[in-house]
Amino acid sequence: MTCWASVDEHAKLWLKEAGKKIIASFQTALEINTKADANDLVTNIDQQIEQYFTKEIRLTFPSHKILGEEGFGDELVNTDGVIWIIDPIDGTMNFVHQQRNFFISIGILDNGIGKLGYLYDVVHDELYYAEAGKGAYWDELKLPKLEEVPVENALIGCSATWMAPNRYMDPTNTLIPLAQDVRGTRSYGSAALEFAYVATGRLDAYISMRLSPWDFAGGKIIVEELGGIVTDLNGEKLSILQKSSILVAKPGLHAKILENYLKK
Amino acid sequence: MTCWASVDEHAKLWLKEAGKKIIASFQTALEINTKADANDLVTNIDQQIEQYFTKEIRLTFPSHKILGEEGFGDELVNTDGVIWIIDPIDGTMNFVHQQRNFFISIGILDNGIGKLGYLYDVVHDELYYAEAGKGAYWDELKLPKLEEVPVENALIGCSATWMAPNRYMDPTNTLIPLAQDVRGTRSYGSAALEFAYVATGRLDAYISMRLSPWDFAGGKIIVEELGGIVTDLNGEKLSILQKSSILVAKPGLHAKILENYLKK
Repeated sequence: MTCWASVDEHAKLWLKEAGKKIIASFQTALEINTKADANDLVTNIDQQIEQYFTKEIRLTFPSHKILGEEGFGDELVNTDGVIWIIDPIDGTMNFVHQQRNFFISIGILDNGIGKLGYLYDVVHDELYYAEAGKGAYWDELKLPKLEEVPVENALIGCSATWMAPNRYMDPTNTLIPLAQDVRGTRSYGSAALEFAYVATGRLDAYISMRLSPWDFAGGKIIVEELGGIVTDLNGEKLSILQKSSILVAKPGLHAKILENYLKK
Repeated sequence: MTCWASVDEHAKLWLKEAGKKIIASFQTALEINTKADANDLVTNIDQQIEQYFTKEIRLTFPSHKILGEEGFGDELVNTDGVIWIIDPIDGTMNFVHQQRNFFISIGILDNGIGKLGYLYDVVHDELYYAEAGKGAYWDELKLPKLEEVPVENALIGCSATWMAPNRYMDPTNTLIPLAQDVRGTRSYGSAALEFAYVATGRLDAYISMRLSPWDFAGGKIIVEELGGIVTDLNGEKLSILQKSSILVAKPGLHAKILENYLKK
């Protein structure tokens, strides 16, 4: 039987260690910006961090499986057992361009069911986490359940890029009416950050056309623990092993966005 | 004759003090979110902070004039003398909804010419500032001059809201082609934050349809000190006493956005 307290303790320890490694990779705060090889650099760090997690998990929890963005984990054919789903740097464009607004994201599943979720804001040293059924936290602060909010009062995470005609949406079914009706839109370029913002009520909803399991695994566990709803843009349940569109929102707001703006 | 070193010293002192007052107004980190009177609360704090600056400036520099968002400054009929242009909380929706991502913005003009600029990220205690002709800084770090970047590599600040038809743009002249051509778009909901991001290279450009002088005065001085270009969306110089659309960008990129996407 899995000792979840031990898994949680190790996950937090490794997140903080991985964060220190990433920070140490910034030789100076503004150097990366001007490097021609910025993309290579981020790939190297992404890989190093994923290898760090993979090595530690295999040593400490040899029966656990790993799905990572950089491919150092396992080839998963099913969701049996304990699976760690890891994005070592979520928001790589922010990492290169901004040296902030990137996260480490981890979701841990127990036979396909979300059990532990972690979103770590490395630069600001802020950790958002949840254990299914036992509450969600922002560092030491227990987060309150998410409450309903009307569309016209909602602040939603939604990129300007998705307002343009794109291959993921029917051109007659754009997000423009939603952008016009809400109180405001924001776009941060990191799914993990935007899930953390929904968890803390800084955003009321977040929409993306295309995310991979490592982009949403950790955030989904945290937001769902708080009563938020996470589906694809058709309102369907996500498959944890497949790419998907994403609609994350407070209860009530999720149904209203789906019915009034997406299902047409 | 104005002793600018003394003005600078006082401005920084007052910014930090004002920041402490704002932080102290957060009774708990997440309480404001659920208050029904959130809008009243932010108005009160906005006014208190502007009154604080107004009182201190009038005591210390009685000949200086003040233009503030909340209206505790002076009625300006011209730009003679030294003028402080103050936004006590830039990003009020973020203040209410997120308790972060809001700034204090100050621009100080000498006979209509930008002299000192300050953008203060209260929650993260990060100060961006410049003295015209003497360099721009992010806390202790001197910022490098902004360099050219191609449109396709640019990360631009541009809200999804501006992608929808709006009263500030000809409907045949949308920003959608620009959003499709750039590397990415971001939207943070605070002009001061977005100016600070352009100054540090975290964004390459920032576009807004409608800003007031207190939204852009401080940021314009900092970005221009770094070689960035600040105009309205027609490429015209801004009047420091009037509302305007805004295109802030790295040199070269500014001309390309203007010529290829806005002047049609």
